[in-house]
Amino acid sequence: MSRASSSPTSLSLADYLGERRKLVEDALARFLPAPPQCPGMLDDAIRYSLLGGGKRLRPLLTIAAAEAVSDEDEESKAEARTLALPAACAIEMIHTYSLIHDDLPAMDDDNLRRGQPTSHVKFGEGMAILAGDGLLTEALALLAREPAASDVPVSLRKLRTIAIVATAAGVVGMVGGQAIDLHAARPHHGTAPAFTPDALRDMHARKTGALIRASAVAGAVMAGASPEQEAAVDAFATNLGLAFQIVDDILDVEGTDQTLGKTAGKDAAAGKPTYPALFGLAESKKLAREAADRGRAALEAARVTGRLLDIAEWVVGRRN
Amino acid sequence: MSRASSSPTSLSLADYLGERRKLVEDALARFLPAPPQCPGMLDDAIRYSLLGGGKRLRPLLTIAAAEAVSDEDEESKAEARTLALPAACAIEMIHTYSLIHDDLPAMDDDNLRRGQPTSHVKFGEGMAILAGDGLLTEALALLAREPAASDVPVSLRKLRTIAIVATAAGVVGMVGGQAIDLHAARPHHGTAPAFTPDALRDMHARKTGALIRASAVAGAVMAGASPEQEAAVDAFATNLGLAFQIVDDILDVEGTDQTLGKTAGKDAAAGKPTYPALFGLAESKKLAREAADRGRAALEAARVTGRLLDIAEWVVGRRN
Repeated sequence: MSRASSSPTSLSLADYLGERRKLVEDALARFLPAPPQCPGMLDDAIRYSLLGGGKRLRPLLTIAAAEAVSDEDEESKAEARTLALPAACAIEMIHTYSLIHDDLPAMDDDNLRRGQPTSHVKFGEGMAILAGDGLLTEALALLAREPAASDVPVSLRKLRTIAIVATAAGVVGMVGGQAIDLHAARPHHGTAPAFTPDALRDMHARKTGALIRASAVAGAVMAGASPEQEAAVDAFATNLGLAFQIVDDILDVEGTDQTLGKTAGKDAAAGKPTYPALFGLAESKKLAREAADRGRAALEAARVTGRLLDIAEWVVGRRN
Repeated sequence: MSRASSSPTSLSLADYLGERRKLVEDALARFLPAPPQCPGMLDDAIRYSLLGGGKRLRPLLTIAAAEAVSDEDEESKAEARTLALPAACAIEMIHTYSLIHDDLPAMDDDNLRRGQPTSHVKFGEGMAILAGDGLLTEALALLAREPAASDVPVSLRKLRTIAIVATAAGVVGMVGGQAIDLHAARPHHGTAPAFTPDALRDMHARKTGALIRASAVAGAVMAGASPEQEAAVDAFATNLGLAFQIVDDILDVEGTDQTLGKTAGKDAAAGKPTYPALFGLAESKKLAREAADRGRAALEAARVTGRLLDIAEWVVGRRN
């Protein structure tokens, strides 16, 4: 038995996450078009950001959701992983593109990401824009292309997954959330209205929540989840996305540049609306806990098991 | 009979193009997610660039290719149009995103497009980046979603179309071509090597040719072309893409800001490699004519008829 196919239940969470992370990172490097098909300087910029570490939360959710809705035997789980792996990689590519564009001078103007110079600092603004564009486009191409030689049911799952992922990444989801955030922080004309708690929730549901939700749902869909399983994974991941964002806001207040690998306190300095700013730290922590608990309840009600709950605990307890 | 379903052979070319253009523009406005699902300021920026005119060459190619491979009766042609319309719109959305990002200060830094202020001048750089990101993402979502309620054969065509279009738009195609162009014009480190004729052809085949080719092939695929028909449309559109780019370079020399609706002479001023610079004007015109003729021969050999040849003549003879 290879390391990557070890039974998910026989491993510590750290070992499970490590093994799945390696599975994803190997596949990311393999799925990307390489030179000379991809011009060398563009390939350098893309691999710098995509293969430069990160928690890999979204692809881990995709893989864990696929495993969670598959049958209990290890062969079924391995097949679920294989079916979900391109989606896991595509979503990490989309996440990485969003970070590259978000860091640009015209957006958040950040020079540090994961403790390293951001893409535009290292490769120039133009190449950073293109690296992001390339990652987004290749992500969708990958979802259409892999797994190759799919039979009709799997092909139809691929088509649904593309719709789910692209909708989550698009103007009703992630890009829409970025636009709301940008308009609030740096309006091009006039001033932007102050955020209400509802508007803050809407922005975060789009900006961060939509792709986290799609990560898990895509894994469930690619593995052939029943409608009930899919709905449970959806409810779980919707709540996890909310918990993730609240914790992110809390870490921006409590963390340091060193623990975060990015500039701490930046949201507050920019006057950005955050959960701690609106609700205070203690109440924010309570809101994160409650969201995670609602996610747990949704999974348990549908008897979807596996590592998803452990991942939720990891997200709420993380320090970066 | 509605105007939009008039028989393609009973109309002048200008009327045919006008009717098909209206079909596409109505569908573009309809397929885009609208507020409040799409935040208002992002929707403004997207519609400003997408619905602000343009030749609509690519979607016209998609529609004409679909009609060309369908049976001769008007009912078959109408069905082919309906099947290809989402792909036509998706490709125009991708083309528009590429213009918005190409015009950015970090790329070509252009203030004028189609006689109007470019997106970043009107909405700010950050919103222009997001409008481009949104258009690209929504284009792929549209391909997965429409036509809705597709049967299995049409769903499988949709999946192939997504792979074709995303690959053409990605790092082996359009984004790769932009990266080569950017690296030559504004290298981040050191100096870029001078272009050879082969390198110029490679850059243009990626930057402009790939999406023009995908436009026609997507229409053929969505309409259920035979492998022979698809290959003929592919060869036709590959040559048309080349002719288009050569004519574009010629117009940059011969045209004025007013006829072009964008800054004329810009490529030469920027020292960009162009066909006239490498081959001279007379030889460039001959190369464009030869490419169009090769395209014609490919279609005629496979007995694919319809408006595709007229569109090729329009492209070679255009003044803007």
